[in-house]
Amino acid sequence: MAAVAVATRWWLLLMLSAAELGVAPAPQPPNILLLLMDDMGWGDLGVYGEPSRETPNLDRMAAEGMLFPNFYTANPLCSPSRAALLTGRLPIRSGFYTTNGHARNAYTPQEIVGGIPDSELLLPALLKGAGYASKIVGKWHLGHRPQFHPLKHGFDEWFGSPNCHFGPYDNKARPNIPMYRDQEMVGRFYEEFPINLKTGEANLTQIYLQEALEFIQRQQAAHRPFFLYWAVDATHAPVYASKPFLGTSQRGRYGDAIRELDDSIGRILRLLRDLGIAENTFVFFTSDNGGSNGPFLCGKQTTFEGGMREPAIAWWPGHIPAGQVSHQLGSIMDLFTTSLSLAGLEPPRDRAIDGLDLLPAMLQGRLTDRPIFYYRGNTLMAVTLGQYKAHFWTWTNSWEEFKQGIDFCPGQNVSGVTTHSQEEHTKLPLIFHLGRDPGERFPLSIASIEYLDALRRITPVVQQHQEALVPGQPQLNVCNRAVMNWAPPGCEKLGKCLTPPESVPEKCSWPH
Amino acid sequence: MAAVAVATRWWLLLMLSAAELGVAPAPQPPNILLLLMDDMGWGDLGVYGEPSRETPNLDRMAAEGMLFPNFYTANPLCSPSRAALLTGRLPIRSGFYTTNGHARNAYTPQEIVGGIPDSELLLPALLKGAGYASKIVGKWHLGHRPQFHPLKHGFDEWFGSPNCHFGPYDNKARPNIPMYRDQEMVGRFYEEFPINLKTGEANLTQIYLQEALEFIQRQQAAHRPFFLYWAVDATHAPVYASKPFLGTSQRGRYGDAIRELDDSIGRILRLLRDLGIAENTFVFFTSDNGGSNGPFLCGKQTTFEGGMREPAIAWWPGHIPAGQVSHQLGSIMDLFTTSLSLAGLEPPRDRAIDGLDLLPAMLQGRLTDRPIFYYRGNTLMAVTLGQYKAHFWTWTNSWEEFKQGIDFCPGQNVSGVTTHSQEEHTKLPLIFHLGRDPGERFPLSIASIEYLDALRRITPVVQQHQEALVPGQPQLNVCNRAVMNWAPPGCEKLGKCLTPPESVPEKCSWPH
Repeated sequence: MAAVAVATRWWLLLMLSAAELGVAPAPQPPNILLLLMDDMGWGDLGVYGEPSRETPNLDRMAAEGMLFPNFYTANPLCSPSRAALLTGRLPIRSGFYTTNGHARNAYTPQEIVGGIPDSELLLPALLKGAGYASKIVGKWHLGHRPQFHPLKHGFDEWFGSPNCHFGPYDNKARPNIPMYRDQEMVGRFYEEFPINLKTGEANLTQIYLQEALEFIQRQQAAHRPFFLYWAVDATHAPVYASKPFLGTSQRGRYGDAIRELDDSIGRILRLLRDLGIAENTFVFFTSDNGGSNGPFLCGKQTTFEGGMREPAIAWWPGHIPAGQVSHQLGSIMDLFTTSLSLAGLEPPRDRAIDGLDLLPAMLQGRLTDRPIFYYRGNTLMAVTLGQYKAHFWTWTNSWEEFKQGIDFCPGQNVSGVTTHSQEEHTKLPLIFHLGRDPGERFPLSIASIEYLDALRRITPVVQQHQEALVPGQPQLNVCNRAVMNWAPPGCEKLGKCLTPPESVPEKCSWPH
Repeated sequence: MAAVAVATRWWLLLMLSAAELGVAPAPQPPNILLLLMDDMGWGDLGVYGEPSRETPNLDRMAAEGMLFPNFYTANPLCSPSRAALLTGRLPIRSGFYTTNGHARNAYTPQEIVGGIPDSELLLPALLKGAGYASKIVGKWHLGHRPQFHPLKHGFDEWFGSPNCHFGPYDNKARPNIPMYRDQEMVGRFYEEFPINLKTGEANLTQIYLQEALEFIQRQQAAHRPFFLYWAVDATHAPVYASKPFLGTSQRGRYGDAIRELDDSIGRILRLLRDLGIAENTFVFFTSDNGGSNGPFLCGKQTTFEGGMREPAIAWWPGHIPAGQVSHQLGSIMDLFTTSLSLAGLEPPRDRAIDGLDLLPAMLQGRLTDRPIFYYRGNTLMAVTLGQYKAHFWTWTNSWEEFKQGIDFCPGQNVSGVTTHSQEEHTKLPLIFHLGRDPGERFPLSIASIEYLDALRRITPVVQQHQEALVPGQPQLNVCNRAVMNWAPPGCEKLGKCLTPPESVPEKCSWPH
């Protein structure tokens, strides 16, 4: 085990405070609660300027905590981002990428053969070393075959699904996605867990909320530190909300889903306060990839800001000062390292870790200079360092797809930037100043001193990164209809086992 | 005089409170302070999601007051918007438009012959009826010929300029713009009031700040209710800031200007608190037309949301509840009617007034259904009613201009919407749902029930508006180099009178 429990300043502080009060030391590290949204964008929260301002609970969470306007996911797509969160490593290291084409996004549909390798150390497994009980509620997305399940990778409990809630499927060409409780399926989407595709009604967020509340209460009663990963998916297509929220938003069904998630988060934070554990629970809110993009360019699937800059709020009353904004460049991978730090653990030393400990930024307002890398597959598309972002490759999607109406930048078109062919700029990257030009509309002139200065700073950082990089075995290359969720563990008890088709491994098709 | 002083509920309330306290009644109406920015956009404030979040004072003003996410100016250009603010009337009524071309924006450059007609009743003139002392600090822009000056239209004091701070000029083809104190010029931009075009350094915001602070203190000492119209222009090209602010923003010089304005507003609000008059001073912050547009389409000069939706904050401690958001569709013209209401006055009854009294929205959270009209020249381009916006004409600018690099929608291009030819949709307007689609990217299908319902609601509102409309005499048709600021009043004392060229009236050219 590469992670070692060490006494951090938090433990010391806690013990000192306890000593001052003349009571027994309470060396329990803080609970960790990660709220991960699905396809929700930077521009979806009132506090980030969404005009309808329908996220009062998240806006309050920001007012009581710290807002990160410059926080990034690790990939413009779901599965790799989620692997990055739980491993603290870029998807290119953990294997959550494809080499089937140049610069292609890939994820874990039902046909995928790969998943999270056993060699990867996941956050819940490491947190066990500090006595944490851990649970994932919602979407896993790191592989659905049994060896990849959350409980094989450190989680104590799971309630949720291994893949996206696409469907309904016919159980012949494809089965509906299973819902698991721990090791076994307890039903399937559109069957035991209905989603009305016409009205958008589904009770899933309420179920996920209850799972969270129950887990928190149970761990609190047991006096065990907990790690809860609340990976809800109501804002991912097909978007859903429960009846009390349907039709309540100014923004349509997508807004209904957000309002229900916002309300649920309000209830979770209220429970923490009511149980008296708010000051001992670190909460972080963010999302897995671009959605509504606010002032930024393009969205999900792209390495423009709209695809990877995410809403992010840290909340830890009594520790993180209220109402602060941090301009630290943050990454979803930092949640790995920060969580370990909170637990008094050090990150594994036998591998490259990309996550940064954000506690200095959160608690002392200290900023750390660090790059943000934007990958598509195994291609480094762009990097941000300070205020400067350099694009080495530009691509939205192919002309062929675009002409079919698939548009990752609706209403946006920056000539020479939002290109529909893969354009190489590795020699002379397109460089933007994200402070003056957050929308990536006006590349710096390559003849300017500013351009040369920025390039001079960026080049060695990229070189160092690329020279040291050891890519993992790509997990997202091979697909096989036989591996779909035909007969998940537990299907016998439910009488819901389906017969898989013949095994035919093939290269997955990743068009963009 | 069409406005009549009437005892409003404010007076009654104030008198009742005073009576309860056993002190003499204090029937003084609240002071009114309008903070009007120049070319600042919806997306420029932290509270509206600007990523650098460099407006702590405005963000605090919003936290202590009421934010309006759906607030509009009356025109996508400066002069007509400012005329609308002070008259409570659409520019088409007050004459602040041109008929020189179809759907053309027009303003008041130095060559303009027209200005605010004597027949218009301006807010400061009306407020005199309730005993207000009034001052304009900054840009007037309602005509620079002597008969149009602020002191001829109800202001008691003026410090500022009649036109934009363009320049420097050579005093042969065109003179530099004068700065006035009251009736007389006290110097000119780039001469007595320097702006360094290379570094962006100018002390003007500091001068405007001191003018505001001094006026407030003086009126407070005199126990006179005041109306202060703080019409600063640092964010209008050429953008400027004073030395302590230059280079301090993440956003470049434009951000430096915003930081200085934000800091100044913080100082003004602090003075109100320090003088103990915050609870008796109504403050409203907004801007004259589009700038940085956040999630919206296009900017200044256009009738898309980016051109006319503005940041707006109301602040009146002890009266407007703190931390509220109002989804009232608001207009810059409402500041006219609301100010009269605050003063216990009624709007003129002998003419159409487009402004709404916002006090019910601000004090009781009551929403009023009302349309927002978007004009370009005398052409009704669009209307918003509730969540629906219907475009009757679309146009950004001509292909000819666009090919020369003039782009009012940089990086944005919505096919069939951001058109470079004037496209008529009067029979079947393009309709957008601004809640689901604030960026005006996805027109409703004309075959949908939603489209038909929206059209059915919008059509009679537009018909009624157009049938009742009496356009004013257009003021922005005729230009003449002889009327430029060659010899403003007071130039003799300064030895700064220039000789005008021969008078040659001609049609002004309005290309977009």
